Amino acid sequence: MQHARVGVIGSGAWGLALARLFSREGHEVTVWSESEQTVERLRETRVIPLPNDPELPADIALTTSVEEACADKDVVVFVTSSRFVRSMAAQAAPFLGPKTILVCATKGLEEGTMDTMTEVIANELSKVRPELTPAVVALSGPSHAEEVAFDMPTCIVAASDDKDAALLVQRLFSGDVLRVYTSDDVRGVELCGAIKNVIALACGIARGLGFGDNSSAALITRGIAEMRRLGTAFGCDPETFFGLACTGDLVVTAGSLHSRNLRCGKMIGSGMPVDEAVKKVGAVIEGLNALPAVLELSQRLRVEMPICEMVDRVVSGEVAPEDATALLMGRELKAEGPAAYED
Amino acid sequence: MQHARVGVIGSGAWGLALARLFSREGHEVTVWSESEQTVERLRETRVIPLPNDPELPADIALTTSVEEACADKDVVVFVTSSRFVRSMAAQAAPFLGPKTILVCATKGLEEGTMDTMTEVIANELSKVRPELTPAVVALSGPSHAEEVAFDMPTCIVAASDDKDAALLVQRLFSGDVLRVYTSDDVRGVELCGAIKNVIALACGIARGLGFGDNSSAALITRGIAEMRRLGTAFGCDPETFFGLACTGDLVVTAGSLHSRNLRCGKMIGSGMPVDEAVKKVGAVIEGLNALPAVLELSQRLRVEMPICEMVDRVVSGEVAPEDATALLMGRELKAEGPAAYED
Repeated sequence: MQHARVGVIGSGAWGLALARLFSREGHEVTVWSESEQTVERLRETRVIPLPNDPELPADIALTTSVEEACADKDVVVFVTSSRFVRSMAAQAAPFLGPKTILVCATKGLEEGTMDTMTEVIANELSKVRPELTPAVVALSGPSHAEEVAFDMPTCIVAASDDKDAALLVQRLFSGDVLRVYTSDDVRGVELCGAIKNVIALACGIARGLGFGDNSSAALITRGIAEMRRLGTAFGCDPETFFGLACTGDLVVTAGSLHSRNLRCGKMIGSGMPVDEAVKKVGAVIEGLNALPAVLELSQRLRVEMPICEMVDRVVSGEVAPEDATALLMGRELKAEGPAAYED
Repeated sequence: MQHARVGVIGSGAWGLALARLFSREGHEVTVWSESEQTVERLRETRVIPLPNDPELPADIALTTSVEEACADKDVVVFVTSSRFVRSMAAQAAPFLGPKTILVCATKGLEEGTMDTMTEVIANELSKVRPELTPAVVALSGPSHAEEVAFDMPTCIVAASDDKDAALLVQRLFSGDVLRVYTSDDVRGVELCGAIKNVIALACGIARGLGFGDNSSAALITRGIAEMRRLGTAFGCDPETFFGLACTGDLVVTAGSLHSRNLRCGKMIGSGMPVDEAVKKVGAVIEGLNALPAVLELSQRLRVEMPICEMVDRVVSGEVAPEDATALLMGRELKAEGPAAYED
């Protein structure tokens, strides 16, 4: 397959940036939006609502019909916000073909179940269409929509248990803008997509305290170490945490002012109450949402996550931001890797 | 030992920031400078020549006598620029005691020999004082002097074959500003300190081409992957490349305008001839210096390093910066980790 029919479920900035890219790679793209108004506006303006008005190519179809976006498609990409993934999977189910590949570009853990987004999709489909066992591919990595929409080179990872599906997604979507690597560690890739936002909050808090690049780099490096500890205990491939979904995405999230988590953390670090900081950012702060699930998982698996735990203590008001540093810096001194100096 | 006598060989910004930190931790510190003028100016002003004039504590002794800086010291820290490390080790040799711990805070590979800096020190000492077999500890990690000099929290790694020496350095220098992790992989830690500057050049070139955070994060992530491939083939611990000397230092070097390599790369990427960019930065560009050694090593060990190779082709004028991207993005598509989908 060289040219695919692609349905995109979701019309946010990332969904539209992906749709633009797919169209650029020669695929036939249909974008679904919940809102008739959004569809009309996009049809009229052909502009992605992002700074500097990136163009939405004219050949991209826009619809509010889930059937239109899903029927007869080779690939259906879920890219709504995380709390709508379950209901969209249910709505899409009746229209999916036996060979449709499902791609999930939404990051996050579901509240309550703590399922990853591909687990949510597979779980929901198995209820509605138990006879379908579609390949599900998680798409993740350092990919600001603001940059992909202007053709800036970006690398991401396509992770799936289904090797052929991951390879197909890689081949279909790679080009001069996107370079797609494959991975067989779906759970690791998706776990990273959720936890990295907590580490980004920590980097934001450090910035808010007036600290610099050294502190951020230390939080990123030691944050990756604790993400890997948790992931490995959870059965993920340690390798994943070197990769684009972990190191790459964390670097971009913790180092860029595009990041809501960083901005929110910064306000908290400079003394603003959490509620107020969230209101000021004016959008979902995924790091705050992921925090309870991450901590529950770390407790269940008995994995020490000092940075995530400290973010929780600061966010809950138990520790003032200005006291958090000394508590982290004053921890028992350690070797860097697990193996150093072991006899 | 709680309070140590510490000699610091070198009076650049990093040497003075370390001296300040050691004094703050209660140690007795003597800084050596080659220049009488520098010693006099520092004695007079008690200011570290950095933005916002950080204070150099009054209890730090300053001298142009190598003997004064080395005799009767528990720890001697080498922190000159890399091309002076060999001669300073020779000059220091006569004054070192049998139990003096040597710390090397200078990064780089020696031109010609391709020795790391601790190898240079050990090698030079073995010539002059073959009866001495001092413990040598490499100190590395994301540590802008500009920030350490203002007490901003910083994590670094102390790597040595000598476990007790690394643990002592960790205990002596850790506090609320510096948190020191230990490592037994000296070669890996030092290799990172040299190669990361080449990857930082690549990130600079991408910035100069007008690309954003996605491209930088991809170069950092895939840069770490190729550093690790080289390091592992060279006998280093793969673990090191997760750590502060690799991931941490690369994040700080490639993401911060304090970095000369980033600034130089940016000018090259925007079309300025290499000579002119170097002149404009007005300081040693360690990434350019390390490039021949890195490539020779990668060829000798038959390790693919596409990013470092592309930096070389751009720097040598063989490939225009604007063509480098397509060449990198158009490479054969790959799995992310070495193990993915292997049967």
